Amino acid sequence: MKAWERVEEGKRQGRGKRKGRDRMEVDEVVCLPRLPRVAVCGGTHGNELSGVYLVREMLKEEKKVMEKEEGEPLSVLIVLSNPRAMQQCRRYTDTDLNRCFTHAKLNGPIPDDAPYEIIRSRELNAMLGPKGNPEAVDLVCDLHNTTANMGLCFIAYSDCDWICLHIFRYLQASTNSSHSLKNLKLRGTCHFQKQMPDVPMRYIHFDISNKESYSLDSVGKHGFAMEIGPQPHGVVRSNIYTTMEVGVQHMLDWVRIFNSGTIFEGGCVDVFTLIKHIDFPRDSETRNITAAIHPQVQDRDFCLLHPEDPLFQTFSGETLRYKGDEPLYPFFINECAYYEKGIALSLARKRCVTIPAIRVQTEQQQQANEQEFASEEEE
Amino acid sequence: MKAWERVEEGKRQGRGKRKGRDRMEVDEVVCLPRLPRVAVCGGTHGNELSGVYLVREMLKEEKKVMEKEEGEPLSVLIVLSNPRAMQQCRRYTDTDLNRCFTHAKLNGPIPDDAPYEIIRSRELNAMLGPKGNPEAVDLVCDLHNTTANMGLCFIAYSDCDWICLHIFRYLQASTNSSHSLKNLKLRGTCHFQKQMPDVPMRYIHFDISNKESYSLDSVGKHGFAMEIGPQPHGVVRSNIYTTMEVGVQHMLDWVRIFNSGTIFEGGCVDVFTLIKHIDFPRDSETRNITAAIHPQVQDRDFCLLHPEDPLFQTFSGETLRYKGDEPLYPFFINECAYYEKGIALSLARKRCVTIPAIRVQTEQQQQANEQEFASEEEE
Repeated sequence: MKAWERVEEGKRQGRGKRKGRDRMEVDEVVCLPRLPRVAVCGGTHGNELSGVYLVREMLKEEKKVMEKEEGEPLSVLIVLSNPRAMQQCRRYTDTDLNRCFTHAKLNGPIPDDAPYEIIRSRELNAMLGPKGNPEAVDLVCDLHNTTANMGLCFIAYSDCDWICLHIFRYLQASTNSSHSLKNLKLRGTCHFQKQMPDVPMRYIHFDISNKESYSLDSVGKHGFAMEIGPQPHGVVRSNIYTTMEVGVQHMLDWVRIFNSGTIFEGGCVDVFTLIKHIDFPRDSETRNITAAIHPQVQDRDFCLLHPEDPLFQTFSGETLRYKGDEPLYPFFINECAYYEKGIALSLARKRCVTIPAIRVQTEQQQQANEQEFASEEEE
Repeated sequence: MKAWERVEEGKRQGRGKRKGRDRMEVDEVVCLPRLPRVAVCGGTHGNELSGVYLVREMLKEEKKVMEKEEGEPLSVLIVLSNPRAMQQCRRYTDTDLNRCFTHAKLNGPIPDDAPYEIIRSRELNAMLGPKGNPEAVDLVCDLHNTTANMGLCFIAYSDCDWICLHIFRYLQASTNSSHSLKNLKLRGTCHFQKQMPDVPMRYIHFDISNKESYSLDSVGKHGFAMEIGPQPHGVVRSNIYTTMEVGVQHMLDWVRIFNSGTIFEGGCVDVFTLIKHIDFPRDSETRNITAAIHPQVQDRDFCLLHPEDPLFQTFSGETLRYKGDEPLYPFFINECAYYEKGIALSLARKRCVTIPAIRVQTEQQQQANEQEFASEEEE
């Protein structure tokens, strides 16, 4: 069975591989393991409030959610990731929690005076992982906000994780009325769709190995950050909150529909792959920034930036231009938290990624898969 | 000389009084003391970055500014108010500096372990005040940013401080081309006007006595906060920075023109007087907020709010309505820093305040004024 071979290529975690994809034919249906356990995390950054309040609300509603489930049970873990930072309404207390999930940081020695977030990252890894282990939850969706005008973005470490890409496509289709949903060519039962607010959506790809990947969502078998803006940190705006709420609902709906055996048709997704970061111009002595994002670039995330386009405006009024040698797509333009990281904006290359039709494995496939894994372990 | 009588009513600090204003005739010219010393302060809140970077830029340009001055010298003190908070990019380190300038706080006993901002407030009071003292600088302009969509606001403790109101009117006139400047009926020399970005401007009045007034700008003989938004804290946006830069330039220009003897015609200014604050709905146990500003109110600062209008949207989707009994003007809608102060928005009543024509006192008037003050002191 051809589809089954594709699953093998994606190994246990159901992640696709580029060479596999290139050989793929459009009509093949790739069978992927069920996703019985999903984690929704908020407050990984304590001042990104949409996720904080959405997860609190989900915790209140947790019982109702359990009751609503039909057919295959889906276990949804709802997690407040950094309660101490939330309590102080700061991004973090000692160090950025969402940079603590590399293989090295999770497994290195831990001193007595370790920063709070290092300790917390291990708790979360025990709860949702361990990272890279078959015990890990099937999908982590980590909720974030940005001050940049980015709309709703998925940020993932893979451009061939069919699960994340299909969920993204499903959310995109839910933005613009039933017409788009029809275009999705979802075969199977009809599901009620609460419409997403009309917000632009993009899929961002950070090309980093699973071992080096540093964020909480990397702990799951599949995972992505759901990043929504613009919203100032320390503030919750109704429109952004609602977008996130509906986005999470759709993501969970998708998992339930997938688990129920529905086939999702293949197609194309625009993927923005991070190429590089650009820092603010800075004073060589004080390291203070000497310019702001140029007004022609501010809020224009994902609008192509060409060589020699204005990029910064110095505080004395001078225009500084983009000196790159190819047009690229800027994003995270003027994100508050990245001043300290030396990032004024990031630049991406866009390309269209073809994704296969997928459906959940049959029980037999799943068992065969598990046996194969067990024998691999014995070797 | 009638105008001189008005000045006497305003006493040494040149602040008008309501009863004086009501008797005032439009053609009278009120003569007010010269304003030789002006302070421009930024970083009173360390994460409100337009003021931080503008004041840093002004410090760099300080020498050039001195060289540019013509005629009557104007001493401009340029102050970074809370360097420690700026360094951490936080509003404050121990306590809100901009609540430390009441008479009681400035003059009470100071313990050894006093919060940093308490110590800093006394340094600033020594530098720019002492508050309520003839030694104080003539005008304090303290630069602030807000996450609320407030445009450019003056916030002052008086609705009859002719200096602040005239400066405000001058800035308003500079927004919309030379047409508005003509409407200002400024008699005197022609000055080059760099146009303000097209940003809405309002004058907000907090009806608090000088003794109880708590903010840095209350230390000067005249003073106001220049509050500009929307801008996330910890971020600098070119458009907001430029608005502030031009606003400060115009303010300083006005003082120079005033000191040079030009008469500014009287007229009308809309003044928004704070009536009350409204907090977010909160969970009675946890005190966490349970709703966000309603999408129909978010970003609608200074748009009249009527009884029964939507006001909040709970995180479970319910609309909560404004239960006041009169229409009022909301402002500081969803200001980040006020979550901890229990303020979701503030409400104001608007009225038109008639301001007299003003000009600077002649040297003789000033001397007479000083002699009068000296004899008052002897009594």
